[in-house]
Amino acid sequence: MEPIDAIDFEKAGGLITAVTLDDATGDVLMVAYMNSESFRKTLELGEVVYWSRSRNELWVKGESSGHTQEVAEILIDCDDDTVLLKVRQTGGAACHEGYKSCFFRSVREAGARIEITETRLETPEAIYGRK
Amino acid sequence: MEPIDAIDFEKAGGLITAVTLDDATGDVLMVAYMNSESFRKTLELGEVVYWSRSRNELWVKGESSGHTQEVAEILIDCDDDTVLLKVRQTGGAACHEGYKSCFFRSVREAGARIEITETRLETPEAIYGRK
Repeated sequence: MEPIDAIDFEKAGGLITAVTLDDATGDVLMVAYMNSESFRKTLELGEVVYWSRSRNELWVKGESSGHTQEVAEILIDCDDDTVLLKVRQTGGAACHEGYKSCFFRSVREAGARIEITETRLETPEAIYGRK
Repeated sequence: MEPIDAIDFEKAGGLITAVTLDDATGDVLMVAYMNSESFRKTLELGEVVYWSRSRNELWVKGESSGHTQEVAEILIDCDDDTVLLKVRQTGGAACHEGYKSCFFRSVREAGARIEITETRLETPEAIYGRK
């Protein structure tokens, strides 16, 4: 079976969830979404292409930031609607906020405060330029 | 700010994505969804409660299998619509298919076949009983 045929894009209206990990460390870098076209392009290019839900368009990761993601491995979950992408991240930061990972804030105690737990590597202005 | 207020449940129609990791190893165990009630209950109980999209009800993880997930830490992503749950998994298998992780199949080559890469720890019959 072709990987594209194994995936159930229809369960959530055309989109699957993609969890992206640093292939070297296993750290979760980000979570985003893919439609069948972006999944197919990811397989073709060997670089990650998401579907942007906010812009409603294909999103070649790193197109504006240079922070591309080269695919090392793709895993599929038991109910065929989520993929796990192991990638080699170009540049230190996967997150548009300049952190390595989008998950840089922690809920420290149940019902308590939220705290930044990671080090910012770059500012968004350094990544995308001042707007 | 309370953690529950920090999260944007409305972006995807009341649900956020939850990526669940083994706190000891960092391995991704599963991906599921939460509404505000399940997130609040997770904070209260210290055990993970998802929202089942297929059954359309609160899903106390492990309620039928005994494979509960005790919360070690919760991280929130940069755009407030995804959480990363670090858990202590009871029993070896987080997946209803009897694998440690739901991501037990790999796309081996672009455009090529899908392969099971993990060891099955239990059968679904052993977990849930024969139906």
